[in-house]
Amino acid sequence: MLNTLFLPELREMLEHNSAEELQEFCTALNPGRTAEYMEGLTAAESWQVLLHAPPGLRAEIFEYFDLDRKLNILNFEDTTEAANLLAELPSDDRVDLIQELSESRVVDLLALLPASERRDIRRLQSFAEGTAGAIMTSEVAKLTEDLTVRQALEELSKQAEELETIYYIYVVDQDDRLRGIVSGRQLISALGNVESRLSDLMETDVIAVLPTDDQEAVAERVERYNMLAIPVVDQGRQLLGIITHDDVIDVVREELTEDAQRIAAVAPLEESYLRINLVRLGWKRGIWLTILFFAALLTAFALRQYDQELETYTWLVLFIPLIISAGGNSGTQSATLVITAMTSGDLSVRDWRTILSRELVVSCMLGSFLASLGFVVSLFVAPDSASAMVIPITLLAVVISGCMVGVTLPLIFKRLGLDPALMSNPFVAGIVDILGIVIYFNVARAVMH
Amino acid sequence: MLNTLFLPELREMLEHNSAEELQEFCTALNPGRTAEYMEGLTAAESWQVLLHAPPGLRAEIFEYFDLDRKLNILNFEDTTEAANLLAELPSDDRVDLIQELSESRVVDLLALLPASERRDIRRLQSFAEGTAGAIMTSEVAKLTEDLTVRQALEELSKQAEELETIYYIYVVDQDDRLRGIVSGRQLISALGNVESRLSDLMETDVIAVLPTDDQEAVAERVERYNMLAIPVVDQGRQLLGIITHDDVIDVVREELTEDAQRIAAVAPLEESYLRINLVRLGWKRGIWLTILFFAALLTAFALRQYDQELETYTWLVLFIPLIISAGGNSGTQSATLVITAMTSGDLSVRDWRTILSRELVVSCMLGSFLASLGFVVSLFVAPDSASAMVIPITLLAVVISGCMVGVTLPLIFKRLGLDPALMSNPFVAGIVDILGIVIYFNVARAVMH
Repeated sequence: MLNTLFLPELREMLEHNSAEELQEFCTALNPGRTAEYMEGLTAAESWQVLLHAPPGLRAEIFEYFDLDRKLNILNFEDTTEAANLLAELPSDDRVDLIQELSESRVVDLLALLPASERRDIRRLQSFAEGTAGAIMTSEVAKLTEDLTVRQALEELSKQAEELETIYYIYVVDQDDRLRGIVSGRQLISALGNVESRLSDLMETDVIAVLPTDDQEAVAERVERYNMLAIPVVDQGRQLLGIITHDDVIDVVREELTEDAQRIAAVAPLEESYLRINLVRLGWKRGIWLTILFFAALLTAFALRQYDQELETYTWLVLFIPLIISAGGNSGTQSATLVITAMTSGDLSVRDWRTILSRELVVSCMLGSFLASLGFVVSLFVAPDSASAMVIPITLLAVVISGCMVGVTLPLIFKRLGLDPALMSNPFVAGIVDILGIVIYFNVARAVMH
Repeated sequence: MLNTLFLPELREMLEHNSAEELQEFCTALNPGRTAEYMEGLTAAESWQVLLHAPPGLRAEIFEYFDLDRKLNILNFEDTTEAANLLAELPSDDRVDLIQELSESRVVDLLALLPASERRDIRRLQSFAEGTAGAIMTSEVAKLTEDLTVRQALEELSKQAEELETIYYIYVVDQDDRLRGIVSGRQLISALGNVESRLSDLMETDVIAVLPTDDQEAVAERVERYNMLAIPVVDQGRQLLGIITHDDVIDVVREELTEDAQRIAAVAPLEESYLRINLVRLGWKRGIWLTILFFAALLTAFALRQYDQELETYTWLVLFIPLIISAGGNSGTQSATLVITAMTSGDLSVRDWRTILSRELVVSCMLGSFLASLGFVVSLFVAPDSASAMVIPITLLAVVISGCMVGVTLPLIFKRLGLDPALMSNPFVAGIVDILGIVIYFNVARAVMH
């Protein structure tokens, strides 16, 4: 839904170079909304508009542009202005953008940045993708513990301009080691006693992460301890940066999307569906399709063992897809429920007894129901009502074993330290398909011989 | 992973009723960590410990207990103390807990609460599950616009005790109508000029939601505009409360988990897997298994049309499961990729041309690869190499049509305003299975006649 409300006016302002009006446009609205109103402009036009905003706000509005627009501006607009913009961007987002620019452009831009900013960029670039270091920002409200509340407020009002938001105030010693945290609420509560020291106010039991920690572990902590931001410290407790709530939401979203993709047997894309290279997409899907292909191939071999039954009772063939899909669907349901419940922390491997017994009850219910449906149908197809019993008995057994395999495999993979979402589906599908065939024809043998 | 580090000490302190030490235990650590150390205690024991914490902190630690422990305490501990605890809890969480208590207990507890709190509870209870109203909290830092910065800070330091965290300061007029927002950062930046008024500092273009808005729409806005908290206002812009970042993370998690469950053809549980009633679980799964059963039943009817081929070329039967699963798997992959990309905002229905053409390329790659694998296998099984061609041709056609159906259906459902995650899988499975059978036997006819 492109927002075209202000487009004609904006174009006109640009044409007449109406500085005052453009400035008004940039400052009047919430920065996110301002960015939305510019979606219909070209990247170059929106940059012309942005130049009328003060540098801090300019960066803020720029942050809401989509990736293509951002890269267009950073790649093709005036180098000095682009470097100024980079200097204003939050350090974590800046590094992500730089990774996407052409190498020669990066050299040009970095040359125009102050040495301290260059160092900051290089340091953040050194952390591997998917770690705490790669998503942290180095802009932190950092104060030393010997300050009084009065001094702290003065110092903060100086720092405030450069900081995105003041989530917490991080209290450090002379060597930049994290000693405690003071929340904005605590600081304001202490206004009645402005001579008290930060070291008296601060909470000293600080939950922090290492820059090498996995980003999912970071998100888990932030959620568990209900934090707005989590500090990142090195082994010596030196404060390196913070990870803010918006990055945590991104991590949660990424993690769960990857889970859904893994459950559907796609290696996680890690990129936008529309931007990913097609060969890479083919690879990420092909590898699992191939594994699943070989799993399904085993059903062909299994079927071969029953060629006599197949020839004598040709009507059994008609129900092969039905039997296999009933097992596969109930298995996938079970596996998905266990996987999503483990991801959200609702259950863990040590609950396995409860899980298995609950699943046994549910699968008997589901199996009996499908069996009774299947019986009605098979009465019309089977030569006699005794043979018709093959279908319901098979369905009941297949659904129960599908569910049991479906809940067991994710638990086993989790227990072995493997990703349950990644491994379960192909194995569940493979095992349940073959089980389906084996059960089907053995039931047929038993009933009809 | 139960944390048993302090358990023996805690039990000993309780036995000797060592008030000082218990108080020290409650206050020394981060509240979340304190709660973790109590996981090994019974609910009654942990409540005995908590009674040594000051009321505000007591509620904070209590918040980190799991649901069972919370309900145990609220249900069975001293009514007056339990009511005091309720009064301290954040208003949104309090309402969720009250919903789970026995009716007579709720009456007893509410009777002990101040009238204003009772009114607040009743008001929050009136909002339907899944709406903004149901997840908002009514504790807000609210100030009137005519205050100066100095007055605002004084007022805030009075309010601060009762507020969880000060995310933003909401500026209202005499009728409690939301006029603007001042961030903590802005307030602190303005310390140099304490006589300036809030009305000069505040941002007036405030993004807000209605209490009846869907919670997913709320999360989407908070993410899009990168907010710590979003205000909830009524039609007349009266400020009712705020929704904070932790609730937004919960919504995102819930939404994506439901997506994964829907993709696996389970109606979203909306409850913990271990707590949900088994009959309800059976229903949520059974309804889709039944639909999928009837879809699979159609394959039996389709197969019946080809009984002549089945009798003449019995070897074709061996590959039925393989063909069906190749189509089903590639279709599920495509559907899941499109669904997750739409949920995360990466693509929308208007990208359909790009999606279809990209999918055509990828499915040709995947289909050709599986076809070549299938050809090698079928050479061993088929009576002659000409007949063996049936398998690769079918695989290629089935994978391509599986992928195309897989991407098309979610787009269509989205376009129709239906939930693509809910509807796609059964339809994709059903259509692709039948397509598989039809393609298979028509290819067989064409090649072998």
